[in-house]
Amino acid sequence: MRSLLAFAFACSVLTAADNNKPLLVAEQGSFFVGGETKSSNPPNAAPDATPSDVTVNQMYVQYQKPVNAGQHVPVVMVHGCCLSSKTWETTPDGRMGWNEYFLRKNRSVYLADQVARARSGFDATIINSVKSGAAKPSQLPNVLFASHQVAWTVFRFGPTYGTAFPDEQFPMQAVDELYKQMIPDFNSLLPTPNPTWKDMAALAVQLHGAVLMGHSESGFFPEEAALIDPTGVRGIVSIEMACTTNMNPQQLATMAKIPILVMFGDHLGDVKGPFGGIWTMNFETCKKFVDQVTAAGGDAQLMELPKLGIKGNSHMLMQDKNNLQLADLILTWIDKHVEAKKIR
Amino acid sequence: MRSLLAFAFACSVLTAADNNKPLLVAEQGSFFVGGETKSSNPPNAAPDATPSDVTVNQMYVQYQKPVNAGQHVPVVMVHGCCLSSKTWETTPDGRMGWNEYFLRKNRSVYLADQVARARSGFDATIINSVKSGAAKPSQLPNVLFASHQVAWTVFRFGPTYGTAFPDEQFPMQAVDELYKQMIPDFNSLLPTPNPTWKDMAALAVQLHGAVLMGHSESGFFPEEAALIDPTGVRGIVSIEMACTTNMNPQQLATMAKIPILVMFGDHLGDVKGPFGGIWTMNFETCKKFVDQVTAAGGDAQLMELPKLGIKGNSHMLMQDKNNLQLADLILTWIDKHVEAKKIR
Repeated sequence: MRSLLAFAFACSVLTAADNNKPLLVAEQGSFFVGGETKSSNPPNAAPDATPSDVTVNQMYVQYQKPVNAGQHVPVVMVHGCCLSSKTWETTPDGRMGWNEYFLRKNRSVYLADQVARARSGFDATIINSVKSGAAKPSQLPNVLFASHQVAWTVFRFGPTYGTAFPDEQFPMQAVDELYKQMIPDFNSLLPTPNPTWKDMAALAVQLHGAVLMGHSESGFFPEEAALIDPTGVRGIVSIEMACTTNMNPQQLATMAKIPILVMFGDHLGDVKGPFGGIWTMNFETCKKFVDQVTAAGGDAQLMELPKLGIKGNSHMLMQDKNNLQLADLILTWIDKHVEAKKIR
Repeated sequence: MRSLLAFAFACSVLTAADNNKPLLVAEQGSFFVGGETKSSNPPNAAPDATPSDVTVNQMYVQYQKPVNAGQHVPVVMVHGCCLSSKTWETTPDGRMGWNEYFLRKNRSVYLADQVARARSGFDATIINSVKSGAAKPSQLPNVLFASHQVAWTVFRFGPTYGTAFPDEQFPMQAVDELYKQMIPDFNSLLPTPNPTWKDMAALAVQLHGAVLMGHSESGFFPEEAALIDPTGVRGIVSIEMACTTNMNPQQLATMAKIPILVMFGDHLGDVKGPFGGIWTMNFETCKKFVDQVTAAGGDAQLMELPKLGIKGNSHMLMQDKNNLQLADLILTWIDKHVEAKKIR
């Protein structure tokens, strides 16, 4: 037993050391997926600049490929509401994020800023139109953003603003750094269906197969992408969101062909206030969805962290103190459910 | 002569091969500089969510350190109007950008999204206020963006939209990919002085010294940052912008302590239309500024690429076909003017 413990300790030390080693990157860069040309109205439009075209609905993607990526399926990570791809990078308290950890586990990682967010830009036409009087104020989009107060409870840092759960896994001493990541969300500007879904499906095709990962607002985007075009979607990781529960048999048949992991953290029912009920409600929709996919012959798994003895995880679980432990759960799931045929 | 040519060819082949080698990254990640808390009005504000605080004016910074960075001063790159840090990454036609090239030349590189742009977010308060009727449409910001038509001439791809200069260095076959990088610019929302200046100065201090590089809208930001706090500013690279020509003696004395490189491309006076005159006008302000700093005893250099025999460069010269040649000019300048004391 003592030698087992010593061995486990040695392994964890080794792992920590490995994570500090220089990274060997075979290739890195960025590009866009999708995008259409439309006519717009810049406030600085020159007299002879008519027509005035802009590109909208493009999705910015930043990637790194490890030297030994060949054996593994690339992973595409898409952030949630009022956030950017910063979600997956250095944690608020300065630890390694999932993007680098997956890379160190020999996965090619693609971070996509949702359409209408961050480096993907957005369509500002309506704002300039309202300013010039050509459109009404009511036509402005609802610009969604999470205040510190809303984030505290919706992200399940504690029962009420200013109080943390005793076993909270989010690095609360660095919560101010998370607040800096929270940026306005123009998704209400977007056409239906959300262009990010189509762009994610196209990216998966472009990569000759990928695992699509979504979180919160984008948690169900991998499924939506697969409904548009499942060709490139080798696996789906959906983290803490509301699931669709009224898919038709044909849609469920599409879902049943793709391994799906749905992950939820802790304290789902422990938050007070107006958002108190959302997580148990969202969880129930996903439980139903997973059951429906399973009934359709699919490989869908609902992973409830507390049931695995992993307690205290917030909604921002990719930034929680045990984030690499959770990453390992996902990596193991990908190995077994998405890549098993290749590995055998 | 033949052997010299063969040697030169061998060297260029070697360099190209080096640029395809795996990258060895000692450390990478992202963080924010600056940021303040203010009260705002999310459209989804919960009844008990008052006060509703958000963080604004933070600057997102993404970095990579090479294994052999120790001997070199880090370089901070800040993009221009209607663009993001994508500016410095993979070029529109898929070649290596300056961020990776500088890294391969053993420089730590820090890419900052300007405050109010991309992953730095922006303050959406006024938009929600106008929508709700609490503020007037005229209070909306001018959302600046460059249409395809405006970009073509302002970025000096050719004399008029649709026509390229015969010796144009921008990869015109990929101009649609540049259009995807062009995103709305909320700088008109920002307080005075622009928080990006303070954040850049603070970043330079945090890095214990850095070369600050700006382009176009941000071309003079390094100088503005140094006027706020020159402590960390080891060198300045200003690319294609308007310069301030009315600094007082004290400000010029500050400038005179920092090596400054100002770089301009080709065809400054060859563009037709309403923006036809801006580049020769901007160039003249910078010529005057460089003369003033030189007269104050400083080390300021105005680099005109055509005078070096380098023809056809656009405003987006970090993406031009000869972008690595231009990067080498900057690297050599840094070696000589910023780091010479250390190297000797």
